Amino acid sequence: MTTLGELGEDALIEKLVALVPREDGPAAGPGDDCAVVDDGGDVLTLLKTDALVEGVHYTADAPAEAVGWKAVARVVSDFAAMGGRARRFLVTVALPGGTEVEWAEGLYRGIGRCLVEFGAVLAGGETSSVPDGSAAVISVAATGEVDRRNLVLRSGGKPGDVVLVTGRLGGSLAGKHLSFVPRVREAGWLAGCFKPRAMMDLSDGLAKDLPRMAAASGCGFVLDAGAVPCTDGCGVEAALSDGEDFELLLAVDADRVDALTAGWHAEFPDLELTAVGRLVERGEGGVLDGGWDHFRRQDG
Amino acid sequence: MTTLGELGEDALIEKLVALVPREDGPAAGPGDDCAVVDDGGDVLTLLKTDALVEGVHYTADAPAEAVGWKAVARVVSDFAAMGGRARRFLVTVALPGGTEVEWAEGLYRGIGRCLVEFGAVLAGGETSSVPDGSAAVISVAATGEVDRRNLVLRSGGKPGDVVLVTGRLGGSLAGKHLSFVPRVREAGWLAGCFKPRAMMDLSDGLAKDLPRMAAASGCGFVLDAGAVPCTDGCGVEAALSDGEDFELLLAVDADRVDALTAGWHAEFPDLELTAVGRLVERGEGGVLDGGWDHFRRQDG
Repeated sequence: MTTLGELGEDALIEKLVALVPREDGPAAGPGDDCAVVDDGGDVLTLLKTDALVEGVHYTADAPAEAVGWKAVARVVSDFAAMGGRARRFLVTVALPGGTEVEWAEGLYRGIGRCLVEFGAVLAGGETSSVPDGSAAVISVAATGEVDRRNLVLRSGGKPGDVVLVTGRLGGSLAGKHLSFVPRVREAGWLAGCFKPRAMMDLSDGLAKDLPRMAAASGCGFVLDAGAVPCTDGCGVEAALSDGEDFELLLAVDADRVDALTAGWHAEFPDLELTAVGRLVERGEGGVLDGGWDHFRRQDG
Repeated sequence: MTTLGELGEDALIEKLVALVPREDGPAAGPGDDCAVVDDGGDVLTLLKTDALVEGVHYTADAPAEAVGWKAVARVVSDFAAMGGRARRFLVTVALPGGTEVEWAEGLYRGIGRCLVEFGAVLAGGETSSVPDGSAAVISVAATGEVDRRNLVLRSGGKPGDVVLVTGRLGGSLAGKHLSFVPRVREAGWLAGCFKPRAMMDLSDGLAKDLPRMAAASGCGFVLDAGAVPCTDGCGVEAALSDGEDFELLLAVDADRVDALTAGWHAEFPDLELTAVGRLVERGEGGVLDGGWDHFRRQDG
């Protein structure tokens, strides 16, 4: 018998999605940041689900309000990475009966604060108990929308494209993972003014997410590890593997990088945009180890 | 400090929804089976989220495929209870790393079987680990749709309406809760041909759900306990309180009940439709104890 821990997350997902009916010709593949529903109009619907697990995505002593913020902000970040915006949220909380009401209220205050900040609403939800001693689970599902002309997938990259990241990477566990501000404004500007060929948010670390973008685009990649912008106090290893950066990873036609960089610095003078590598032909380029795997763990 | 177990599920939800932004003038209240999105067209969008927790909604030795079926069927049942149908699903599974891959595959086979049966698709999802020893959580979110003229809320009942239930109640734990077939065909016929004033599915037991429908409709209720149709081998207590019947509960204008009953028996000769009580003026009628509360437990 093989366990999930032995198989690993990506192989597991591949096995599972083969067992269920899917949309014919979806606008985005199963591995993209969100599902895209194309009803033929100028605005496409986005669908996303994402969960926080106590002891995996946050510790039991994390402030409840920050956990609530994070639960919503992760999904907002996924919509932003497609060029879109969040609309309606469904929140499921599965908590032990011994949880203090005050903690649940703090959680919802954080959820509410993030929804207000990004112009979304709570449309529904569910509360359930979990057996005593079990980890709490907060599962968030949401609808979003994106103007058809602004939709950016992770699968549109081409060999020769320059790969860039926003901000600095690594060190999320020092606190950033609970308080990050999704790159909604930046992603909106990119999708509207300087449409990247491919874009995604960095949730599992560059070492895991860059290979995913390259694979979705049918490319290989080369990474210039020395160019990776590291959070103060972090080395390259941490910047590649810590995960939960929630920065944007994008692939841009090499001919447009100078113009993009100039436009970016005028619009966002305080936020770095750094070229860290390239997409190359499939089968060429490097292999990366590291990043966060939900079943294998980082050292697996 | 008050715990969730002391507060109870309904009071908790009331506290929490006050802390987050909501839609202005939603088409359905926060307590209805689904959220309703009204974009002005002839077809309304439904949104629903629902979770299964190991040790709460199923036992660790339950067949994985039946658990998957149940996870999807519960949501299909909610859409049916509004007069609608299921469309696109997002499935989040949070499992310990030691779970056998075969179990996860069985789960997805059950999910797939139910999606195919009711014409829905998987649009996306997520896998996460939970710490070893924690309960598995399967969280399902979905979009559905309903023709505007067929939409039935739980809040439309009026004093004098007759309250009816489909099928027989009680005994879900003997196995029915894992293999029930959502009343999609029956609910579609009701909504299309004999629109009830109010309808919902029975998930927490008649003792809990009838008061909810009455309260949502601004009414009281009387229950004729002797009329409640009990599953073979179950007493009235079990029929009122076991929960997870997934039968339909409806409120119908008293003048139309005879015609409805005649039409029903012609259409569904093998399924009972039983009058079990009435809605009355608010403040009148009875009080019921029992039913499933996620935090207080049945005996709480």
